[in-house]
Amino acid sequence: MKPSHSIQETHDVAQVARRARRASRLLATLSATRRDEVLIAAAAALEQRRDEILAANDLDCDAATVEVEAGRMSRAMFDRLKTSARGVGAMAEQVRGVARLPDPLNRMLTATKLDDDLILHKVSCPLGVVCVIFESRPDVVPQVVSLALKSGNAIILKGGTEAAHTNAALVQVWHELFQSFGDIPVDAVSLLHTREEVGQILALERDIDLVIPRGSQAFVRYIGEHSRIPVLGHGEGVCHVYVDSAADLEKAAAIVLDSKVQYPAACNAAETLLVHGDVAENFLPASVGRLRAAGVEVRGCSRTISLAGTNDIVPATDDDWAAEYSDLIISIKVVDDTEEALAHIDAYGSRHTETIVTEDAATARHFMTSVDAAGVFHNASTRFADGYRYGLGAELGISTGKLHARGPVGLEGLTTYKYKLFGNGQVVSTYASGERAFKHQPLSQSTTDKSKEEK
Amino acid sequence: MKPSHSIQETHDVAQVARRARRASRLLATLSATRRDEVLIAAAAALEQRRDEILAANDLDCDAATVEVEAGRMSRAMFDRLKTSARGVGAMAEQVRGVARLPDPLNRMLTATKLDDDLILHKVSCPLGVVCVIFESRPDVVPQVVSLALKSGNAIILKGGTEAAHTNAALVQVWHELFQSFGDIPVDAVSLLHTREEVGQILALERDIDLVIPRGSQAFVRYIGEHSRIPVLGHGEGVCHVYVDSAADLEKAAAIVLDSKVQYPAACNAAETLLVHGDVAENFLPASVGRLRAAGVEVRGCSRTISLAGTNDIVPATDDDWAAEYSDLIISIKVVDDTEEALAHIDAYGSRHTETIVTEDAATARHFMTSVDAAGVFHNASTRFADGYRYGLGAELGISTGKLHARGPVGLEGLTTYKYKLFGNGQVVSTYASGERAFKHQPLSQSTTDKSKEEK
Repeated sequence: MKPSHSIQETHDVAQVARRARRASRLLATLSATRRDEVLIAAAAALEQRRDEILAANDLDCDAATVEVEAGRMSRAMFDRLKTSARGVGAMAEQVRGVARLPDPLNRMLTATKLDDDLILHKVSCPLGVVCVIFESRPDVVPQVVSLALKSGNAIILKGGTEAAHTNAALVQVWHELFQSFGDIPVDAVSLLHTREEVGQILALERDIDLVIPRGSQAFVRYIGEHSRIPVLGHGEGVCHVYVDSAADLEKAAAIVLDSKVQYPAACNAAETLLVHGDVAENFLPASVGRLRAAGVEVRGCSRTISLAGTNDIVPATDDDWAAEYSDLIISIKVVDDTEEALAHIDAYGSRHTETIVTEDAATARHFMTSVDAAGVFHNASTRFADGYRYGLGAELGISTGKLHARGPVGLEGLTTYKYKLFGNGQVVSTYASGERAFKHQPLSQSTTDKSKEEK
Repeated sequence: MKPSHSIQETHDVAQVARRARRASRLLATLSATRRDEVLIAAAAALEQRRDEILAANDLDCDAATVEVEAGRMSRAMFDRLKTSARGVGAMAEQVRGVARLPDPLNRMLTATKLDDDLILHKVSCPLGVVCVIFESRPDVVPQVVSLALKSGNAIILKGGTEAAHTNAALVQVWHELFQSFGDIPVDAVSLLHTREEVGQILALERDIDLVIPRGSQAFVRYIGEHSRIPVLGHGEGVCHVYVDSAADLEKAAAIVLDSKVQYPAACNAAETLLVHGDVAENFLPASVGRLRAAGVEVRGCSRTISLAGTNDIVPATDDDWAAEYSDLIISIKVVDDTEEALAHIDAYGSRHTETIVTEDAATARHFMTSVDAAGVFHNASTRFADGYRYGLGAELGISTGKLHARGPVGLEGLTTYKYKLFGNGQVVSTYASGERAFKHQPLSQSTTDKSKEEK
């Protein structure tokens, strides 16, 4: 396969967005069966054209090798860029997995009889056009394209230049498939490459409905501050484990260790441990010992330092309470009571995931109701905060915003709803005059709005 | 009652927001019964203190009379400002109406057994702190305060200076009530007055979760462009009625008339009529006649002008297709088919509400699935797009955004959700190692999460 022409092409980004919107109108009318057929065919096409994809990836990797040797690209970035026969196979499997998920569209959310022959349905539907901005990892392409198509959305991808050949080869597979299907518009998937195009995208709020930035925290924040389009992404993950006075200390030590060390770079890893003063003396020496044995640097408040029974604890500063280390470092604070723990979490937490360890049900309930976070856990590791572990089937990202989608976001995050009103010529003046009154009867509803679906 | 000191006080807005956030943490733990008790007591207190509220309103109206006479305030604004004994009674009734609504909190949205003894609940909860920015109408105060408290949110009100005494008197009623209750923080409701404070509010994204601007379109747009906090509001309402070739023309004429004239200033009034070419000759003369008889100015495309059988149609320009007249003016375009109607709506509609009039079920289905709007109606007036008519019980506003809340927004728009995970000491490493596998069983769920509620 020759490298796709779309690599060199300069795009009129506004045109791309307008065409994507037109395509989205067609995608919204496809049946669930048809959408799944596309995904299943795409998985097979990815496998069949594996060698072309790998050849394109080799081109990117050759260029990247030069960058790594010149010290302009990190080894980690190179590793994320590089794919393999197994990698392409995993992409295909992931697309099949998305096809198997339940249809997120045409779900009947409420049904109300406003009056005889005047029925209101609130029904889930696609957002329209979604833009995903990402770096290096080519496996993002089949993943987010399949999630977008499953949910009836057109998608604009903005990948990194370092993966331009690989991304173009992957998108080419989808484009040729759409052409063979006939009823799927090619503009359902568009690929952009340059950094300048990002700025243009963020102003197209009329044609693009959602931007999903995937990358560093600074990058996500930049997009959030410069976009006129709603952004789904997460800022920080400053998660806490609070060990209450009524905690089972063995459970507590295991949860603290797992929350910190199981994968410290993840946003759902714990950064700060809060320990109730009544159990600090019993709990800290053993728990700190296990953390230290796992290679964790410990930064503590003065009470932690005096109680932990080790002399290698760094005094914690105010910056430590606000830090997302994303590394084998933990800060520890001894608190007087649950209220002090709640106030600390309110002041320093990022509203991602907060865990209480306690055997007291009332304290757990109070903590879980009071804490303002996407996830509030009782006697479980913060690391469970994840779309796969929650059973969402596929994760688009984790949102620390509270509107639209919160916490791990699956397919539902790519949908909105519309109100469908089925009348028989009714006008409002009949009701305003008192001639007729609304009935407003909730209807027992089937879970999907199949009768209204097309094709 | 002496005018509340809060009129003169200058506020540290960041402090107000921080105290509101602290209050919101307490409000989140109140039971539904307790929240309703506050509302019912507030309704009685408003009635009991009617004379104080009217005295404060007189002060505002005296000052406003000077402004109106000097030509600095419109008569319409004065009318919105002025309240009466009946007005205060209506406020109290509205608060009681909110108390009667079903509890929007602690609704169990999903329940999943991740594994034995590891249960995940997705539960509705308050947003936290909501800020409502409004002008003149003092009845906004009891309405939005009661909606906020019903949904467990703290609220920051920014009213107009012209209603400062009235708003302060109303807020005073709530504040004294909270003090008598003991468990309701006074900071649950705060009142700001100056325009400068608005700018400060919009940067406090850490402590305020949602801003709801109520006022002119230009004002709502200004807030949207300057806020770092999510905004719930609506921009334009450019709604269409499409009369299909298979329309019942009598129904069509009635729907067009109602959509335009029943209340032309409303955002859900129709601005443009699209008529299929096959029925234009039969439909337009009678329909235009009824519109003209109702005092509606008609602006039409060339085919409309030649077919309407009247010589007083103004030629429509491109600006007309994009205009929200909010007045007794309608633009009319003859289209060749449904696709042209859909393309016109896509180009000029504001995604608010779109109606098709047809007896052809397949065409209606296609229109309703294809059109990207909060409301898609079949054989019904656009004027039905309204929280009261939809049976939501109370309307916070209408959203033309697609994320979070879309269309008429009720109490649900003031809630988000959190994931509550109930474990027994589980850690992720057990699952990562393959020692245990997730079960991910959906649990049959009760509709509320009562067992987890406090007090």
